Amino acid sequence: MYAETVTTLPKIGITLGDPAGIGPEIVAAAIAAASAEERAQMMIFGDASVLERAYIQASGDRLPGAVQLVDRGRLSPDQAIPGRPTEATGAAQVAYLEAAVAAIRGHSIAGLVTAPINKRAARRAGFEFPGHTEFLAERLGAPDVAMMFAGPSLKVALATVHCALAEVSSRLTSERVARVTELLAVSAERDFGVGGAGAPVRVGVVGLNPHAGEQGLFGTEEADIITPAIEEARRRLVDRADISGPLVPDAAFRRARAGEFDALVAMYHDQALIPVKLVDFEQAVNVTLGLPVVRTSPDHGVAYDLAGSGKARPHSFIAALDLARQLVARRHAGSSS
Amino acid sequence: MYAETVTTLPKIGITLGDPAGIGPEIVAAAIAAASAEERAQMMIFGDASVLERAYIQASGDRLPGAVQLVDRGRLSPDQAIPGRPTEATGAAQVAYLEAAVAAIRGHSIAGLVTAPINKRAARRAGFEFPGHTEFLAERLGAPDVAMMFAGPSLKVALATVHCALAEVSSRLTSERVARVTELLAVSAERDFGVGGAGAPVRVGVVGLNPHAGEQGLFGTEEADIITPAIEEARRRLVDRADISGPLVPDAAFRRARAGEFDALVAMYHDQALIPVKLVDFEQAVNVTLGLPVVRTSPDHGVAYDLAGSGKARPHSFIAALDLARQLVARRHAGSSS
Repeated sequence: MYAETVTTLPKIGITLGDPAGIGPEIVAAAIAAASAEERAQMMIFGDASVLERAYIQASGDRLPGAVQLVDRGRLSPDQAIPGRPTEATGAAQVAYLEAAVAAIRGHSIAGLVTAPINKRAARRAGFEFPGHTEFLAERLGAPDVAMMFAGPSLKVALATVHCALAEVSSRLTSERVARVTELLAVSAERDFGVGGAGAPVRVGVVGLNPHAGEQGLFGTEEADIITPAIEEARRRLVDRADISGPLVPDAAFRRARAGEFDALVAMYHDQALIPVKLVDFEQAVNVTLGLPVVRTSPDHGVAYDLAGSGKARPHSFIAALDLARQLVARRHAGSSS
Repeated sequence: MYAETVTTLPKIGITLGDPAGIGPEIVAAAIAAASAEERAQMMIFGDASVLERAYIQASGDRLPGAVQLVDRGRLSPDQAIPGRPTEATGAAQVAYLEAAVAAIRGHSIAGLVTAPINKRAARRAGFEFPGHTEFLAERLGAPDVAMMFAGPSLKVALATVHCALAEVSSRLTSERVARVTELLAVSAERDFGVGGAGAPVRVGVVGLNPHAGEQGLFGTEEADIITPAIEEARRRLVDRADISGPLVPDAAFRRARAGEFDALVAMYHDQALIPVKLVDFEQAVNVTLGLPVVRTSPDHGVAYDLAGSGKARPHSFIAALDLARQLVARRHAGSSS
């Protein structure tokens, strides 16, 4: 049962997230559901005592030896009570991430799947970023990253992320929209096998305003920002992508779901997340575009109300881990061929 | 074939919309698909020559005599070429609406289904309104109206409608959100048979910002505007409705579709229309709440590119007409019992 299984596949890091949230139990469930080879590919960043407890609760067994754990050794189990975040748990979740970054820099892992953190607690522990995405971009020196949600029906990248709806317009720039369009088109081709020679990736860029502004009747961002961005992206991508837009938002997601576009660029968080969660719930994975490694995460938060109850559903986390494996395998095959 | 069929049901008015758009042909298709009794309930406001031509093209037959037509007699067929709007067609679509308003005031019709108009052309013809909804509110002296979309999966009313996304926040008021919540709860109960004694209507009020602001991290409208509106609506509706919110937008539509809420109040056009068109395409009907009569319309525009091609799909218009019939029958039964 504890026989060593080796793998030639690059390792995938997993951070445990907030030890007081549902992170430890969904990671434990993912380990329990994995094959021996899949386990051999995992490298977990967290506290052994916390993960061990969650694993025993989830499966009744002790943690399999095949799982490699980078133990931060900071928390005893009674310092990480499910549903009760403390200063210590807030600091621990940041320490796991810093350890994962060191492993990425040392080329020990080729992908990273992150369980959810508590952003307020992270901030108190000196984490000066809106979320994982910005943290990883800074630590790994990636100048342009974008958040993408990939599900069976929809693949959508976001031009703006966590800000008030009233601020979206002022945060939107042509350069940003063009860059996200480019990152999405490249990822669709490289990571998802869409498009390629003779069949360029079909990317739709969604408008900002109702009816895409209806010729300036309800807003001018389509003419001032989005159309120039589409023209710039077309210049950069030449014939690698077929870029349409600005699309009428209330038609774009239906059209993409019907197969008219391979992927979309959305202008703001809920423009993407409302349709994605409606049709791809628990199957949509958050993918960070523009990092030197694959990074995915589930589409939910720490869920303190569920932590420790045994009711947290690991489906989204397992989908994130499965997708990370696929993307790592694809990039690995691509680089060694 | 032309035998008179009489009906005791209140009449339903139908405006032909822009005679250069797909209005005439979708109205013709709805007439062709209707039973004799359903035809006897129709009163059409338009030009006889335009409708007659569209009907012959759609069905090969002449217009059945049972259909009552309030002929404006303004356009000859060669003044209304499909796909080619003119000053005359722009003025005609407004004249049809004014005739329908006169019929509502005279109690000749209890419901109105409107085919799409061209707003720019209407404006040139002196129509000083953003759309049908505001026109009818003004002409019929209705102080508070709201746009609702009703489909098999989702029923959503809108707190703001046609404006730039950047203006949504400044247009949102507690009074407006409370009023729309009230109109929606009353309509859900009266028109859609949801809720009632012992089982109050379950209305969800959606937040404005990502994660409903995440405790003020991304916007404060949830605390400043939406929460007070929910409290006010609860006071007004007492035990007639069970009102939840502000809901996290990217979860609200999924939860409503799963049956957790009977109806939702959305804060802006695309927050409602993206999910509605994604899951209830061609089945979602635009219903105006707060008018003295039932009013519905399809969820599409004039579609000049399709006009006259025989390719326009009448499904959404027929759904609007069917829903108007149901709502009129329900209100009629309610008032005569």
